Amino acid sequence: MAEKQLGLQTLVFGRPPRIIGSATIAGPKERDGNLGDYIDALLTDSMMGEFTPEKAERKMLYQAAQDALAKTTLTEDDMDYFIGGDLLNQIISSSFCARDLGIPFIGIYGACSSMVEGLGLGALMIDGQYADAILVATSSHYQASERQFRYPVELNVQHKGTNQWTVTGAAAAVLSNQGEGPKITHATFGRVIDFGIKSPDIMGAAMAPAANDTLCRHFQDTNSSPGDYDLILTGDLGNMGQQLFVDLAKEAGYTLGTKHKDVGASIYKPHQRTGAGGSGCACVALGIMGYVIKEMCQGRYRRVLALATGALFSPLSYQQGESIGGIAHAVVIDNN
Amino acid sequence: MAEKQLGLQTLVFGRPPRIIGSATIAGPKERDGNLGDYIDALLTDSMMGEFTPEKAERKMLYQAAQDALAKTTLTEDDMDYFIGGDLLNQIISSSFCARDLGIPFIGIYGACSSMVEGLGLGALMIDGQYADAILVATSSHYQASERQFRYPVELNVQHKGTNQWTVTGAAAAVLSNQGEGPKITHATFGRVIDFGIKSPDIMGAAMAPAANDTLCRHFQDTNSSPGDYDLILTGDLGNMGQQLFVDLAKEAGYTLGTKHKDVGASIYKPHQRTGAGGSGCACVALGIMGYVIKEMCQGRYRRVLALATGALFSPLSYQQGESIGGIAHAVVIDNN
Repeated sequence: MAEKQLGLQTLVFGRPPRIIGSATIAGPKERDGNLGDYIDALLTDSMMGEFTPEKAERKMLYQAAQDALAKTTLTEDDMDYFIGGDLLNQIISSSFCARDLGIPFIGIYGACSSMVEGLGLGALMIDGQYADAILVATSSHYQASERQFRYPVELNVQHKGTNQWTVTGAAAAVLSNQGEGPKITHATFGRVIDFGIKSPDIMGAAMAPAANDTLCRHFQDTNSSPGDYDLILTGDLGNMGQQLFVDLAKEAGYTLGTKHKDVGASIYKPHQRTGAGGSGCACVALGIMGYVIKEMCQGRYRRVLALATGALFSPLSYQQGESIGGIAHAVVIDNN
Repeated sequence: MAEKQLGLQTLVFGRPPRIIGSATIAGPKERDGNLGDYIDALLTDSMMGEFTPEKAERKMLYQAAQDALAKTTLTEDDMDYFIGGDLLNQIISSSFCARDLGIPFIGIYGACSSMVEGLGLGALMIDGQYADAILVATSSHYQASERQFRYPVELNVQHKGTNQWTVTGAAAAVLSNQGEGPKITHATFGRVIDFGIKSPDIMGAAMAPAANDTLCRHFQDTNSSPGDYDLILTGDLGNMGQQLFVDLAKEAGYTLGTKHKDVGASIYKPHQRTGAGGSGCACVALGIMGYVIKEMCQGRYRRVLALATGALFSPLSYQQGESIGGIAHAVVIDNN
């Protein structure tokens, strides 16, 4: 059971659930990027034979869910809950996937932080014995996101250098109170932090203060520091956001140094011309379920703080002159 | 702690949290409807002095949250989490409210079922000792929903008789492991059930099978029947959906009779010309936090099964020819 202490907001799991199966799927651009070798299913056609990117996105999500289950001895019938969320309006990718899976569904929205919001919720539900096994999954698709948040890709609107490129992919994890795999030992849910940035073209900078807020609260709550982790993985701060995050953490007294990696800033190669890097729900999800889990299995990392960030706005809130708040949710994944 | 039994999906809380404070706010049309007397704050201006309905919606939500806190001895600083969701793309009402509240935020999406999804999650988090106090809130706004899901109201597009009218309002609840108030004793999270209905003009019918699925699972899991409840309150099935729900429940062996009320079908008066009745996240939320809680305080009801329904689709999924899946989440509220 969790130890909830007054004034502390990091949950410490006494019966930490394990990630007993995970799966990743991604498109051609991600295959050619830096994480290609860590992704289970690499698509040659990012449309997966579908007529719309939205249908392709939910097909990826469903496949990731099935692939994660296939790595375990369990099926969807053994899952107590499916926790999922995505960027599309009314989280249709997750909802339709939930329909096809037939598992009781807890829909969430944390923008690009959704995977870790889901892992945190799923972990506490298993730790608290509300469930034996939970499927957590998320997805994003470049074309679906572009036309929803910016412009249809057919318009060929030029990207700015500070724009981020929505990752086409999906990832899923099966959490269980039995079996083998890395444990989720802690969860820190984030607050919405708004530094007044109004441009969706610099989302990384809008999210960096939230990442720092959750980082600091996590360190303070657990009396830990960067030295206690083999890796501190942020989601999709991108080139600009990650520098700001590192600077903010340093101001707060934490020197991250080589312990820190940002999936957004590292998922693509420079020649791929993706502006400030990757973003989207699948970005940090591929980082965790692809890179982290596989490197853990290889023994490279034992204890990782996964800190997923999300920009909480909509095209409409931006058009109405609102600023962009950020949020960051964190979990500790431990393979000891 | 919850008793999780194999194959059962209803959570039974051993340390049921209490609703120690609740608040409701609604617009002029709701004031003139059947629930007017049960709503705390009645607006004469549904725009609340704002220039857009989206800004008005989040203002209502924030006010409901503050009003609910004001009925307790706690403040937002005492809240461990804010759980919120709404219908607007990227749940901006809840996200901006979370920013202003400064409480760690768990964003959810269950369409019009969001309030009960939040109550269920909040209850298990307190029951499991992951939190001492949690704020749960949701909102919807007629104009904001119309222009997002259908047409801008300025176009004066005629409603169909089977359309439902999005409720303008917000409701909030403070859950706590201490204090006085009705308890949340059980939660049943729903599955997505899709009967192939493709028209967003008959959403009540699209949601009725999901309501019946959760009802039956709840009764089976808890070995209970309609006789064990003083009221079975569904969310926004509306005139058409509620009849279908009653029929489906009867086929499954449960005669609901006068135990059943649907908020959507009863929130407005016939002369208000709202088609098949009310809908929106605020619909069932006003029903629970307004009608149920106040009638409980008067001693009329002791044990209520609140069954909130949601239609999981987006305008885009509808345009792409997809059907509309429904979901229903349930909690038991007990004032014994």
